[in-house]
Amino acid sequence: MFDKGILLIISGPSGAGKGTVVKELMKNDKYCLSVSVTTRKPRKGEIEGVSYYFKSEDEFKSLIDEGALLEYASFCGNYYGTPVKYVEERLSEGKNAILEIEVQGAIQVKERYPDAVLIFLTPESISDLEDRLRGRATETDEVIALRLNRAREEVKLMEKYDYIVLNDLVRNATSRINGIVETEKYASERNKDFPAKFLSEKGVD
Amino acid sequence: MFDKGILLIISGPSGAGKGTVVKELMKNDKYCLSVSVTTRKPRKGEIEGVSYYFKSEDEFKSLIDEGALLEYASFCGNYYGTPVKYVEERLSEGKNAILEIEVQGAIQVKERYPDAVLIFLTPESISDLEDRLRGRATETDEVIALRLNRAREEVKLMEKYDYIVLNDLVRNATSRINGIVETEKYASERNKDFPAKFLSEKGVD
Repeated sequence: MFDKGILLIISGPSGAGKGTVVKELMKNDKYCLSVSVTTRKPRKGEIEGVSYYFKSEDEFKSLIDEGALLEYASFCGNYYGTPVKYVEERLSEGKNAILEIEVQGAIQVKERYPDAVLIFLTPESISDLEDRLRGRATETDEVIALRLNRAREEVKLMEKYDYIVLNDLVRNATSRINGIVETEKYASERNKDFPAKFLSEKGVD
Repeated sequence: MFDKGILLIISGPSGAGKGTVVKELMKNDKYCLSVSVTTRKPRKGEIEGVSYYFKSEDEFKSLIDEGALLEYASFCGNYYGTPVKYVEERLSEGKNAILEIEVQGAIQVKERYPDAVLIFLTPESISDLEDRLRGRATETDEVIALRLNRAREEVKLMEKYDYIVLNDLVRNATSRINGIVETEKYASERNKDFPAKFLSEKGVD
């Protein structure tokens, strides 16, 4: 059967708990996080190829021109992108590569790479989201209002995602995502070589 | 989230072990088997509405004309079909309805009811299938050769299925199918009312 990794895109409103869920998934070595390319200067302690791949703006633009990025965006005057090569290498090693990106980037990746599995991680309701954001106690009312408005827009794009995963509890969300990854490996779309293998002497590995 | 049942179509070559896997799934009360309609005469001990719904040929033909059957076929001079109503009632109760039917019937159901999940249950290779058929020790070489030829044809239609499930061990196959059913409930296709629920005060149940 399908023995490559799966490219897993995780998006969701700010405050949905993406970071915590991804951290929990990463405890399992069948997952890896994609390492981004950036034009931002390295901060103290950041390691080339682990934290980021650090590039000049010219180098970054060449990567765009070469089609070497799955998606990219600019933020605070710096570029950030996902290198195709890094992701493909991990997938061919059988690792599921996790990309935690926002909705527009996710849609870009799906167009470029239809085998990607898009997961929208979300609390149960907008009022739950508000409780979570207030619970952080780090943001002003104004910032919270902005985030909630943005969530109202993002949830409309949910139909572009393959799956909606409730983050009621981190362990539930993690187990749902593990189940999705497992199940996706049985999709006939990913096993088009099955009939030939089935009919061969050796059969399916 | 999606709280209805899923219509699960299980097909696969004769000898793949469909009966055993379905029996194992049925130990869990979240599954139910579809009760077929037939023009065959009831045998001793068979109960109307449990074993089958017994109908005259005229009644059966009316069901076809009314579009009341998800699929039907004739076999040894009798008609057999799957009543839409029975299946829809079980799904709305949240039960996953299992239909064990052959490939052509499965494709008919998918056209009529795109929400159905089509599972192709299969051994790892044609030679495994042959071993299984010989292991039964109930069939002549001629019948085995016929079944193997049919399997060679069926496996080509595998791409019409949503998932391919290996039946290496009954408990593995059962657990894969349980995972598929669970995962399908998070599909955004099945949760189109999510944004509205998310934005309402109450949220998602």
